[in-house]
Amino acid sequence: MTATADIATVVNDYIAVWNEGDQGRRRELIARTFTEQATYVDPLMSGQGVDGLDAMVAAAQQQFPGHRFELSFGPDAHNDVVRFGWTLVGIESGAAAAVGVDFATVAADGRLATVTGFLEPGAQG
Amino acid sequence: MTATADIATVVNDYIAVWNEGDQGRRRELIARTFTEQATYVDPLMSGQGVDGLDAMVAAAQQQFPGHRFELSFGPDAHNDVVRFGWTLVGIESGAAAAVGVDFATVAADGRLATVTGFLEPGAQG
Repeated sequence: MTATADIATVVNDYIAVWNEGDQGRRRELIARTFTEQATYVDPLMSGQGVDGLDAMVAAAQQQFPGHRFELSFGPDAHNDVVRFGWTLVGIESGAAAAVGVDFATVAADGRLATVTGFLEPGAQG
Repeated sequence: MTATADIATVVNDYIAVWNEGDQGRRRELIARTFTEQATYVDPLMSGQGVDGLDAMVAAAQQQFPGHRFELSFGPDAHNDVVRFGWTLVGIESGAAAAVGVDFATVAADGRLATVTGFLEPGAQG
């Protein structure tokens, strides 16, 4: 990996953050993916920095055991922004529990500075 | 209209900016819709402030005569962010020349502070 991370790698690592159950590895992934003061906000939750983002993801994992996030489209990047879609899928059932799209701003070093999530209406099943 | 503009009104006025051919009325709409230092960026163009945004929209109108922007979904807002979809439609043909989605951050007074546009691939026809 070069000093400036490739956006596809960053977005793949970002999805991996949401799926990583081991706190040590998750915090490493967060530090690699987000700037130090990075923020995440969606209609249901928010967090900032390694501690805040880690606690937020841990809470989401507790709320949806047996599920994992998958990239559904993108990343679609231009200038210093990127969007991509995701689906929260039941590992055994394959059913989508939630579908959404994230929009992010990218820092000069290639890490995510702000991430904003939106949920597709009626996609919960 | 209250001091803090309703997000649906702001987004409708934003679409109206792109369709307004009279420069005086367009600049009024821009001042009502965007903060003074507001930025717009998409893969093809960018602009900042009333002068920059007005010049950008005027250039887009010259590039697509006989077309108008229509809201295709949203606005979908939470916290201080909003997303909405748009279609650039031929007024006579009804055909979509471009389809996209805009993400925006909303200032405390309800106006748009940053707008980022993305284009749907393959939607040009």
